[in-house]
Amino acid sequence: MILDSLELLSYRNYSHILLRFNPHLNMLVGPNGAGKTNLLEAIYLLSTGELRRGKRDTDAIKWNESFTWIRGEVYYDDGRTSKLVTQIRIEGEKAFSINGKIVPLKRYLGAFYVVSIFDDDKEIITGGPDKRRDFLDDFVTNIDPEYHFILDRYRNVLIRRNRILRTKDIDRRLLDSLTELLIELGEKIMRGRYSAISIYNRYLEREGDRFGISVKIESSYLTGNIDESIKIYKERFNSSRTKEEALGLTIVGPHREDILIKVNGRDSRSFASNGEIQIILFLLKITQLEVIREIKGYKPVFIIDEFLNRLDSRNSRIIIDVIAEKSPQLFVSMISKREIGIQGTVFNIDGGEVINEETL
Amino acid sequence: MILDSLELLSYRNYSHILLRFNPHLNMLVGPNGAGKTNLLEAIYLLSTGELRRGKRDTDAIKWNESFTWIRGEVYYDDGRTSKLVTQIRIEGEKAFSINGKIVPLKRYLGAFYVVSIFDDDKEIITGGPDKRRDFLDDFVTNIDPEYHFILDRYRNVLIRRNRILRTKDIDRRLLDSLTELLIELGEKIMRGRYSAISIYNRYLEREGDRFGISVKIESSYLTGNIDESIKIYKERFNSSRTKEEALGLTIVGPHREDILIKVNGRDSRSFASNGEIQIILFLLKITQLEVIREIKGYKPVFIIDEFLNRLDSRNSRIIIDVIAEKSPQLFVSMISKREIGIQGTVFNIDGGEVINEETL
Repeated sequence: MILDSLELLSYRNYSHILLRFNPHLNMLVGPNGAGKTNLLEAIYLLSTGELRRGKRDTDAIKWNESFTWIRGEVYYDDGRTSKLVTQIRIEGEKAFSINGKIVPLKRYLGAFYVVSIFDDDKEIITGGPDKRRDFLDDFVTNIDPEYHFILDRYRNVLIRRNRILRTKDIDRRLLDSLTELLIELGEKIMRGRYSAISIYNRYLEREGDRFGISVKIESSYLTGNIDESIKIYKERFNSSRTKEEALGLTIVGPHREDILIKVNGRDSRSFASNGEIQIILFLLKITQLEVIREIKGYKPVFIIDEFLNRLDSRNSRIIIDVIAEKSPQLFVSMISKREIGIQGTVFNIDGGEVINEETL
Repeated sequence: MILDSLELLSYRNYSHILLRFNPHLNMLVGPNGAGKTNLLEAIYLLSTGELRRGKRDTDAIKWNESFTWIRGEVYYDDGRTSKLVTQIRIEGEKAFSINGKIVPLKRYLGAFYVVSIFDDDKEIITGGPDKRRDFLDDFVTNIDPEYHFILDRYRNVLIRRNRILRTKDIDRRLLDSLTELLIELGEKIMRGRYSAISIYNRYLEREGDRFGISVKIESSYLTGNIDESIKIYKERFNSSRTKEEALGLTIVGPHREDILIKVNGRDSRSFASNGEIQIILFLLKITQLEVIREIKGYKPVFIIDEFLNRLDSRNSRIIIDVIAEKSPQLFVSMISKREIGIQGTVFNIDGGEVINEETL
């Protein structure tokens, strides 16, 4: 899969721009605030139909404009091409089209796969357990879209159950039926996360060696055996009932699962160096790429926003090699041009415009 | 204020090391995982008596060792010197000494001031409102140590009040007296934060220009006038009572204050570029330095952990100039040596050892 061209109208700091990309490497170079990250985010938006976590759709629209569109042309390995458009209006409406035909988001999402590393992705490693739960859940959804709806239902049942637990006269029958439902959905989530963790750990074990580190994901809810873990989870649920009623809160379940990334046997939140954090993040993302490639049959495009500047030359070298092997096309932003051993195009950017292009 | 020497025993990846520092610039250079950040954190620990947020004291101790100490010799502008030691045992006990005499932490804290920028400090800008509340509160504590105890009492009263709100038969008299106390403490916190925001905004207005950006801190609880704001806060408190009892939660007060950093008039969480985030963070930290300098009469040492690599040459230049003007001594870590226009020493580090020193 290759992103051949990108056209932006009234997007972030870009009025209008049309870019034709290199099939291998595209290096976006420019000073602070030039719009490098914005361009990478446009590619992400073209792929997912939304801005990254924490931003509203309408943030994509240029200041004082009423709408934006992001257009891209994607080439597939089998020679087919697709023209994708995401359009966002200031009122918040979005529309997606493939080859000129309006399609629902669900249909749109399969057309263009991107694996990206932005700066704040580091929070998967350094942030609270919720960040890691979200990351695992996104991964499971990639494999099984149905999982998304299980998560949604779980959240709804959880809210209703907590509300019941807080009432002065608890409706026991309702509580029991919600509890049963919650346990059932919780079991599905645990099974999904268990497979995600297994896939990650297999990959991390194999690939960590390249960087001379050992990385492993552990969960407070998982013993070695998933069936055993689910048995324990159910027992814990039964024994917590009195405490739950006192607190008015559901205290057992995947919404409280603690997920730990260990580096060389120790908690990465306390012991991973800045460089190790980048490497772990890279390994997690490349696993995601491998799974998409296997399940969907496409090789996703890879995006890195100023990622390599925290890495020494040895680790940068390894990462570039891995990307060149696994992904057909790489987009990377940098403060200044740098030779990284892949043929490509440098886009010199400033003030929301491409000043010039050169071949690397 | 100058950190003249640092000695570490069984600290993180260092077995034993003794460093004599340059009075101007100290550049720590080495590959990923060499121990650059660990060294900078040791200086932070020497100053504050603790590791940074999110790390346990005992994380400072080298793997399989039972204790660590961090020793430093500080030179003051008036010619005095102090030998500082922080010692941490695996059981979690800590001891502090100045010139060989054991002192309580409270007394120790005034001896050595550091202003630091580590990677995760970015969360002050990109994280939730709690990060900005904590940052403001730390700043107020710098100015008025008493503020620390007000925050503590507020938290305790809040917990007790929420517990009462959750009971089935609410004790009205107790609730009323806790409410009164909470409002009183909340008012003090609001006044503290208001002065912090005023100081920041004055500085941000003056210094933002250098970088060509306009930065401003706003709070959901502050109108232009602090007395007016407090009146509104109290009124809001009274009108929320029914909702609070239904939710079993205190929903008004400084623990829910929403603090916003605006860049060029827009929310920095959504609109600041990576470079702008670094600049805003720098401006916030240099304000902290200015206030310490003014109130304590010392010029703090400045620490930056791989900060400049996200900045273009123009912005790096300005930041270096500002530091050179405001702080006598700079510590900075880098992947590879780089000329930054200040005379100093380069420490080449790898595997928890200084391989060699060179003059820059």
